[in-house]
Amino acid sequence: MHTELCDRFGIQYPIFVFTPSEKVAAAVSRAGGMGVLGCVRFNDPDDLEAVLQWMDQNTDGKPYGVDVVMPAKVPTEGTAVDIDKLVPQTHRDFVAKTLADLGVPPLPDDAARSQGTLGWLHSIARSHVEVALRHPIKLIANALGSPPKDVIDEAHAAGVPVAALAGSAKHAQRHADNGVDIVIAQGHEAGGHTGEIGSMVLWPEIVDAVSDRAAVLAAGGIGTGRQVAAALALGAQGVWMGSAFLTAEEYDLGVRSGEGPSVIQQALLGATSADTVRRRIYSGKPARLLKSRWTDAWDAEGAPEPLPMPLQNVLVSEAHQRMSASADPTTVAMPVGQIVGRMNEIRPVADIIAELVSGFEAATRKLDTIRDS
Amino acid sequence: MHTELCDRFGIQYPIFVFTPSEKVAAAVSRAGGMGVLGCVRFNDPDDLEAVLQWMDQNTDGKPYGVDVVMPAKVPTEGTAVDIDKLVPQTHRDFVAKTLADLGVPPLPDDAARSQGTLGWLHSIARSHVEVALRHPIKLIANALGSPPKDVIDEAHAAGVPVAALAGSAKHAQRHADNGVDIVIAQGHEAGGHTGEIGSMVLWPEIVDAVSDRAAVLAAGGIGTGRQVAAALALGAQGVWMGSAFLTAEEYDLGVRSGEGPSVIQQALLGATSADTVRRRIYSGKPARLLKSRWTDAWDAEGAPEPLPMPLQNVLVSEAHQRMSASADPTTVAMPVGQIVGRMNEIRPVADIIAELVSGFEAATRKLDTIRDS
Repeated sequence: MHTELCDRFGIQYPIFVFTPSEKVAAAVSRAGGMGVLGCVRFNDPDDLEAVLQWMDQNTDGKPYGVDVVMPAKVPTEGTAVDIDKLVPQTHRDFVAKTLADLGVPPLPDDAARSQGTLGWLHSIARSHVEVALRHPIKLIANALGSPPKDVIDEAHAAGVPVAALAGSAKHAQRHADNGVDIVIAQGHEAGGHTGEIGSMVLWPEIVDAVSDRAAVLAAGGIGTGRQVAAALALGAQGVWMGSAFLTAEEYDLGVRSGEGPSVIQQALLGATSADTVRRRIYSGKPARLLKSRWTDAWDAEGAPEPLPMPLQNVLVSEAHQRMSASADPTTVAMPVGQIVGRMNEIRPVADIIAELVSGFEAATRKLDTIRDS
Repeated sequence: MHTELCDRFGIQYPIFVFTPSEKVAAAVSRAGGMGVLGCVRFNDPDDLEAVLQWMDQNTDGKPYGVDVVMPAKVPTEGTAVDIDKLVPQTHRDFVAKTLADLGVPPLPDDAARSQGTLGWLHSIARSHVEVALRHPIKLIANALGSPPKDVIDEAHAAGVPVAALAGSAKHAQRHADNGVDIVIAQGHEAGGHTGEIGSMVLWPEIVDAVSDRAAVLAAGGIGTGRQVAAALALGAQGVWMGSAFLTAEEYDLGVRSGEGPSVIQQALLGATSADTVRRRIYSGKPARLLKSRWTDAWDAEGAPEPLPMPLQNVLVSEAHQRMSASADPTTVAMPVGQIVGRMNEIRPVADIIAELVSGFEAATRKLDTIRDS
């Protein structure tokens, strides 16, 4: 499975994996793909620095990248305290009552309370870029589309290509105009921020719109080698995956109640492809999440409209912390794509990658038979 | 492009095309695919009889099928007058005011007013099956899933396989349990009735769930040969298309203002993949439609909730007639999938089929290179 991106990045397979876990990211890179570490959870740049040092020591010199969350337009932002004041009390009351109704325990008094995931703030995302560029990263991806022009220039000056997510051909063209090197065409099926247009329609549309200027990675609905074959048949030069690696054996985030999978992994293992919802409740922009008693509460009559980004994340951040710290798989706030229906066992990263490659080969041989018979 | 379905149906390509136009259906069959004529518009069985006689004379002995709209459970139904009484006056008032606001002219006094598209009623759909089975049809497809058991048995007794649309693996399994021969896996991208799960995830899920018992056709988002390759890579044995043939040169339904494409075709040619909405306003069940001033009106504040099937279609049927009879491409009620973004020119059916075949071949050769290099 070899495309132009393999030569460009020095990787064996054109498989790019976004993950918040450095253990998973490193394992992907070691297995011949490109691990891309999500930075949004690092409120303190020093924590990111420490994790990237770990990455440098654990990737056997294989390439890896980072993923930041940075809007193209710099929003007005103040201190965390100022932003806090913009969250209406009625919304706070709804969240407090919902958590009580769902039986989610408060944080222990001594737990570090984050005041929102500050990674959503522009200044913090910039610090992520600064820290990352001190390491031998091979890619900076931005979950919110084009980063600001000066960030793209800074990455290019350091010889690092920039990738940006797009949910429409129009967005993709704008990214290419801004100098983005790789467009990640993210279909409706995807976990996290996602648009209305399904992968089957979106991917070839974006390929046709920008492939003379930017490489295209297919995202949204990929978990098996057959889907990799479909993505490459539709003209993508590689795939961008996330959800399917949340049930990797190496995925070490989240609470574990005893041996075996973590609480969040238990929730994922039991879900079908129909058990996701696409809502603004996670960040203020539409994002696909695992359906849970938490998402149900926001769908119930009388629930408030979610706030705009970044206020919604400030509103729900402590709720996310509380749910993450509890051991109840029915009450989670977890971005995941519809491919969750196929995430039915815990597997090592190397096994997942091996199936992607062998499944791709089997699918293409079957197509040959259909074509040649 | 040869799969087991080609031998089973005596067709050259495993390309099944649903269309309300007999001109298009016959052209598809003549071009080596399987034309499947939509019957729901025929309120009078004699009209269907006449059209099928035309099909018999214009398909050069090539196989064709029919598509009916029949719920598995026989609903309570009375005369059209009884059903009419169940439609609330507030809903009628909303429709009347909306049409006036949009400037849609009334029907001429002498126009035949249909009292709803009666094809949605079970008794009418049964008459469609009866009429069709007097012709050499090779397939009966049902847009609403499994038909009732006795209809399946009747078709099988006549040697005619039965196909049913499914939007989830659970539905697909139920269809196979009921004796359905071919499951049409219809992803979120599709026009008309469609579920939440995107094609990229849904197709392989349904393939894995039923392919030991039923063949699977992929539907939702297919308009080019690359997408056919993706569908077959994902394990489908063929494709089911609809939208992409609405802009066929042979498509002769709808008002034409002078030379060139019809009003509805003009609306389709100008739309992007973002210009559809999935709403209950067409039939009472979620269906993807071209975004228009009509769909906008139902999205506006103060618009009523759509009625359940079949009442919603009874409510809006005359409105559909009035919009169809007018020459305004901005005011239409037209089911179409997200592939509409690629429907940018009027082409003969034979050209569309030829691209599907050549595009499939090109995509598979590209995959070979990616695999073997």
